[in-house]
Amino acid sequence: MKIGIYGYGNLGRGVEYCAAQNSDTEVVGVFTRRDPESVHTVLGAKVYKAQDAASFKEKIDVMIICGGSATDLPKLTPMLAKDFSVVDSFDTHPKIPEHFAAVDSAAKSAGTLALISAGWDPGMFSLNRLYSESILPCGETYTFWGKGVSQGHSDAVRRIEGVLDARQYTIPKEEALRAVRSGGNPALTTRDKHLRECFVVAKEGADLKKIENAIKTMPDYFADYDTVVHFITAEEMKANHSELPHGGFVIRSGKSGENGKHNHTVEYSLTLDSNPEFTAGVLIAAARAVYKKHARGESGCITLFDVSPADLSAKTGEELRNALL
Amino acid sequence: MKIGIYGYGNLGRGVEYCAAQNSDTEVVGVFTRRDPESVHTVLGAKVYKAQDAASFKEKIDVMIICGGSATDLPKLTPMLAKDFSVVDSFDTHPKIPEHFAAVDSAAKSAGTLALISAGWDPGMFSLNRLYSESILPCGETYTFWGKGVSQGHSDAVRRIEGVLDARQYTIPKEEALRAVRSGGNPALTTRDKHLRECFVVAKEGADLKKIENAIKTMPDYFADYDTVVHFITAEEMKANHSELPHGGFVIRSGKSGENGKHNHTVEYSLTLDSNPEFTAGVLIAAARAVYKKHARGESGCITLFDVSPADLSAKTGEELRNALL
Repeated sequence: MKIGIYGYGNLGRGVEYCAAQNSDTEVVGVFTRRDPESVHTVLGAKVYKAQDAASFKEKIDVMIICGGSATDLPKLTPMLAKDFSVVDSFDTHPKIPEHFAAVDSAAKSAGTLALISAGWDPGMFSLNRLYSESILPCGETYTFWGKGVSQGHSDAVRRIEGVLDARQYTIPKEEALRAVRSGGNPALTTRDKHLRECFVVAKEGADLKKIENAIKTMPDYFADYDTVVHFITAEEMKANHSELPHGGFVIRSGKSGENGKHNHTVEYSLTLDSNPEFTAGVLIAAARAVYKKHARGESGCITLFDVSPADLSAKTGEELRNALL
Repeated sequence: MKIGIYGYGNLGRGVEYCAAQNSDTEVVGVFTRRDPESVHTVLGAKVYKAQDAASFKEKIDVMIICGGSATDLPKLTPMLAKDFSVVDSFDTHPKIPEHFAAVDSAAKSAGTLALISAGWDPGMFSLNRLYSESILPCGETYTFWGKGVSQGHSDAVRRIEGVLDARQYTIPKEEALRAVRSGGNPALTTRDKHLRECFVVAKEGADLKKIENAIKTMPDYFADYDTVVHFITAEEMKANHSELPHGGFVIRSGKSGENGKHNHTVEYSLTLDSNPEFTAGVLIAAARAVYKKHARGESGCITLFDVSPADLSAKTGEELRNALL
């Protein structure tokens, strides 16, 4: 499978690393809006100008689009689907139906296949919500995020006056996890489930009380949560908070049998040292499925919901039944 | 979707209960080798003779076969696949390729679709082994079973002279779980991962030391494990050990990035009050997928590896993307 990497930030680098772990996958090139001369790839993939991508139409089986969901992907995915079968990690949940429709229309016209919203949420967490709801129809599903760095919340803190740098961790509350695991199907808001912890480097002489108050009262981001703020030095930030870990839990608790007397709990959890590198692993597996399904004549837009697990693997059906079933 | 239930033990009853939780599912009938008059179904499903099943060919979309893997399913599934699209929970791992081939041949000739080995292991655990290996190709996967009742091991203890009743629990060892979760990819045998705990009701005057020794030295079943034996009364057995709980863990730990410096752990776990009723939930969802795929013209033998998650659900693609993605 020959892939292209469109966009080369943390996620694009993760895809290049992950492609090297998959013996059936070859990186044809990285496509960037920056000057290709200025981009040094981690494992030596060739770098081309983004606007030249279309000329690789016949040389690339699947283009993996490594852009942001806020402004990049809504434009890039439909555009690139005109020339390539594509995969993206679009993660703005409420806008997925709109993005799906735009990509589906572009891909159907072009006869390409596009898989959107691959990653872990949306992605692996979505799959687990779907599987566990399908097998336990009477129950409740709970999603917890963390412990991990939320980049949107970190950015919001950085925009406060007097703040030089900031990192925000979302942390699931132990008592909420316990309540869910007990099978009691508690009613929990996002606030009940999560704590927000901020590490902040302030400018010299900045009013720390004022910064802390600005964080804790920020609407949408922090006002509705229990938030803890720590002020640290730039050195501490670099030493202790330069990675992008993340993870979380999807837990479904459901009933069965006579008067629902039996309880069942299905729990899926991720503990990730690197959010972008794990996401990259999902993107490569999704690209493999797109490659196989497009070869079978499929076109339009799909998600991981539409992919049989066997299509994500490089192994044959027989190998999978022998080794993993 | 109109289903039949072939075989009416714990699993068949679980399927009848679970069908009632799925508004798109109707139980046409239960088929039994016993005298139908003697079988009382838990929710009132009609009971017919097993040998009359073929006359329901046009009235049943999917036959769910609720028989044992040792002797029933190797005969029943290929036989019933001649008249019906079918689902079974065949769980003798090493014999899956052979069973697959026999069922595939029967189903292909008849133009029916058969899904084998649905349940939790094989089944949901297999899916998680496949997903996590596909997205984290460099790593190790570990499966732990329990805490739960192993019916095969319980039966083996019951066959010892002087034993009236017995229940065997398989219990994952905490230290092995910790070692795996730490990301160290330890080499662990099944013995390293599990403890076996037996509750035994002995005949009056039986030699307890002899029974305990017979259990602990039994080849294949116990000799290679750390085994604990408790003698209890028949009343204690009934009060505390009459349910069939089970569960377990599938954990994959994998590396990514520069020199594999980032570790990721994916963990899937089940805590089930009733092993057969949870298995029944998987069988119903699998039957739905068989129904949809057969309507699209598919025939032959498949497993859950070949089923897109969306096909397990009663919801439309649009509903799934809105609610669960």
